[in-house]
Amino acid sequence: MPEFRKDPIVGRWVIISTERNKRDSDWISKPHFERVSGFCPFCEGNEDKTPPEIFAYRAEDSQPNEPGWRIRVVPNKFPALQIEGNLDLRSEGIFDKMNGIGAHEVFIESPEHTLRFVEFSFEHIRDILWIFRERMVDLKRDSRLKYIIIFKNEGFAAGASLEHSHSQLIATPIVPKIVVEELEGFRRHYNDKEQCIFCDIIRQELTSKIRVVSRSQSFVSLEPFAPRFPFETWILPLHHWSHYEDMEYNHFYELANILKETLEIIKKGLDDPPYNFLLHSCPINESMDLDFHWHIEIIPKLTSIAGFEWGSGIYINPVRPENAAEWLRTNS
Amino acid sequence: MPEFRKDPIVGRWVIISTERNKRDSDWISKPHFERVSGFCPFCEGNEDKTPPEIFAYRAEDSQPNEPGWRIRVVPNKFPALQIEGNLDLRSEGIFDKMNGIGAHEVFIESPEHTLRFVEFSFEHIRDILWIFRERMVDLKRDSRLKYIIIFKNEGFAAGASLEHSHSQLIATPIVPKIVVEELEGFRRHYNDKEQCIFCDIIRQELTSKIRVVSRSQSFVSLEPFAPRFPFETWILPLHHWSHYEDMEYNHFYELANILKETLEIIKKGLDDPPYNFLLHSCPINESMDLDFHWHIEIIPKLTSIAGFEWGSGIYINPVRPENAAEWLRTNS
Repeated sequence: MPEFRKDPIVGRWVIISTERNKRDSDWISKPHFERVSGFCPFCEGNEDKTPPEIFAYRAEDSQPNEPGWRIRVVPNKFPALQIEGNLDLRSEGIFDKMNGIGAHEVFIESPEHTLRFVEFSFEHIRDILWIFRERMVDLKRDSRLKYIIIFKNEGFAAGASLEHSHSQLIATPIVPKIVVEELEGFRRHYNDKEQCIFCDIIRQELTSKIRVVSRSQSFVSLEPFAPRFPFETWILPLHHWSHYEDMEYNHFYELANILKETLEIIKKGLDDPPYNFLLHSCPINESMDLDFHWHIEIIPKLTSIAGFEWGSGIYINPVRPENAAEWLRTNS
Repeated sequence: MPEFRKDPIVGRWVIISTERNKRDSDWISKPHFERVSGFCPFCEGNEDKTPPEIFAYRAEDSQPNEPGWRIRVVPNKFPALQIEGNLDLRSEGIFDKMNGIGAHEVFIESPEHTLRFVEFSFEHIRDILWIFRERMVDLKRDSRLKYIIIFKNEGFAAGASLEHSHSQLIATPIVPKIVVEELEGFRRHYNDKEQCIFCDIIRQELTSKIRVVSRSQSFVSLEPFAPRFPFETWILPLHHWSHYEDMEYNHFYELANILKETLEIIKKGLDDPPYNFLLHSCPINESMDLDFHWHIEIIPKLTSIAGFEWGSGIYINPVRPENAAEWLRTNS
C-alpha cells in the first residue's frame, strides 16, 4: 500500500510508493560519475581564467591569483546575481520586479583536477567548511543581503558544469521561498510546543534509530521521515544552532568527519551517484535564534522529476526512508 | 543586469539571468527526442499487457481490451496511489501519515506506436481532451478525492518511461501544495481587487502583447512574466472558467487547436524538445468558482535543475520571457 507522509516542518506531503520501484525506468541509468578531459579554468596554473580571487588558503610565499593555493574562492564568471547596484523594486502593471543584486561565488576546493570532495582528507574538508563560514561572516556585513545558500552540484546529472571539485555560494536580497516555509514551520511548532521542531525530530529519531545513518558526538545523519527523493540524507547538529556561522572552530573538524563519512556511505551504497549538497542556515542580519536549526541536505540524483511533481509539488519517492537507512548502514 | 521577478499568483521569485546563457553547459545537449524499439504494452494487439481498460473510444463492433480502439484509458500498472481502502490518517510520534489512496490512470492516446501527440489531427486531440474531462467527471463522484491533475511526460528526459504517446491522471485525497499556493494567491487578489488574478493578467498581456505566443477567439498561449524555466508556456481560457470540466463540448475543438499550434511552435522553434504538459484545474468537490482559473502549463525540458533550485526554491532562468515569446512567434 502506498503511503502519504507529511514533512512536519513545511507541511509538504510526499507519496512513498514502493510499487513503482518495480519499474526500472524510474532509475537513472546514465554513468554515475562522468569524467571528461579538456581545458579546466579551476586547475592550478589557470588562475587568470577565473575572475580575481576573493579569498584563498595559499602558501605564505605565494601571490593572489597565482599557483600555490589549496582552496580558492572566486566570483562566478557567469553570475546569476550581480553585487553592484541597488534593488530598485518596481512594477510593470500587475507585476513586480527588481534588480538581480546579490553575490555568486565559487569555492575551488582543490588545485588537483581529479580529486573528488569525498576523497579529500578530514582536515581539507574542515578547511572548506570553515571557508564557507568565513564567506558568510564577510557577506553578512552587506545589509542588502538577507540569505546565503551554499551548495554543491557533484556530477553533470546533478547540474555541475565543470567536473573539477567546487561548491558555490549565492547570497540573495530575499529570503528564499523554501526557507520562508521552513521558518513558518519552525514558528508554528514553537508557538505550539515551545520547542525547536528539529530538536524534537532529532530526539525522536535518536530514540527510534530506524532512519539514522550515522551519528557522532555532536551530529547525526539520517533519512528524513518524508523525503522528496530516494536516499535523501540530512546532517543535523544535535545542539540547537540556528546559524551555521555561529559554530566554533573546534566543531568543524567533527562536521567534516560526519560529512565525509556520510558521502562515503552514499558513494559505496549507491554506486557513486551524482548528488546535490545544500547548506540551510538561518536568514542573516535578523535575530531568529529560536526559529531555525541549520542543517545539510544531501540529495543523490537517482530518479528524474516529471510532470506530476512539477504540477503538484507532491514528490513520488519509490524508497521508504527506513529501508534507505538500513541499506546505507549495511552496505557501506 | 540580472532581474528578480515575482510570480503574482504564488509570490515565487525567479532570477532572469541572461548572463548565464553564455554557458553552453546550461542547455541539455542530449538528443531531443529519442526513439527506442522493443516490446510496447500500449500498442494495438497488446491490450492484455495493461490492466483492464476503464474507458475507450473504440469501433462499435469491437470488444473492451481487444483491438479496434482509438484512445484507451487504463489504470497505471505501477500506480503511485491505490483506489481501494481508507485514508486512515495516523501518527508516528511527531510525524503524520496516511494510506496512499487515489487514482492513477494512463491515457493511451493512439494505437500507433510512432505517432506523437503533436502529429495527431485536431479532432483526435479534441477527443483526448474530452476524455480528460470524462474521467474527471467520473472521479469527482468519489468523495475521498480532492484534486485531479492531468499531465504528460513527452520524451525520456521529461520523465516518460514509455515512448508510445500517453498522458496520465493522478487523483489525490489532498489538494497539492502548488495548487494550495495558487488558491491562496487567487483569494488574496480577489479580496484586494474583487477580480480573478488570471483575468487581470490576461487583460494586461493582451494589451502589451510582448509575452503572447498565440491567441484564438477563446484562448491565449503566452510566456508567463516570472517563468521558472526557459520557454515555459501557458495556455489560458480568456473566459473565467475555474473548472476544466465545466467547459462545454464545442470549446474543446478550439482548445485542441491552440494546444496543437503551440506544441508545433515549440517543436519547430526549439528543435523538438522533450516537455511536460500540466493541466491545473480547480479542486473538485468544493465550490470555488471565483477562486481559480484553469490553465495548461507546458514546460520544455531544456535546462537541468541543480542544488541552488532544490535548496532555495528560486529558479534561475537564462531566457527573458519577452525574448522567448518573440523567438517562438518568429521562428515557427
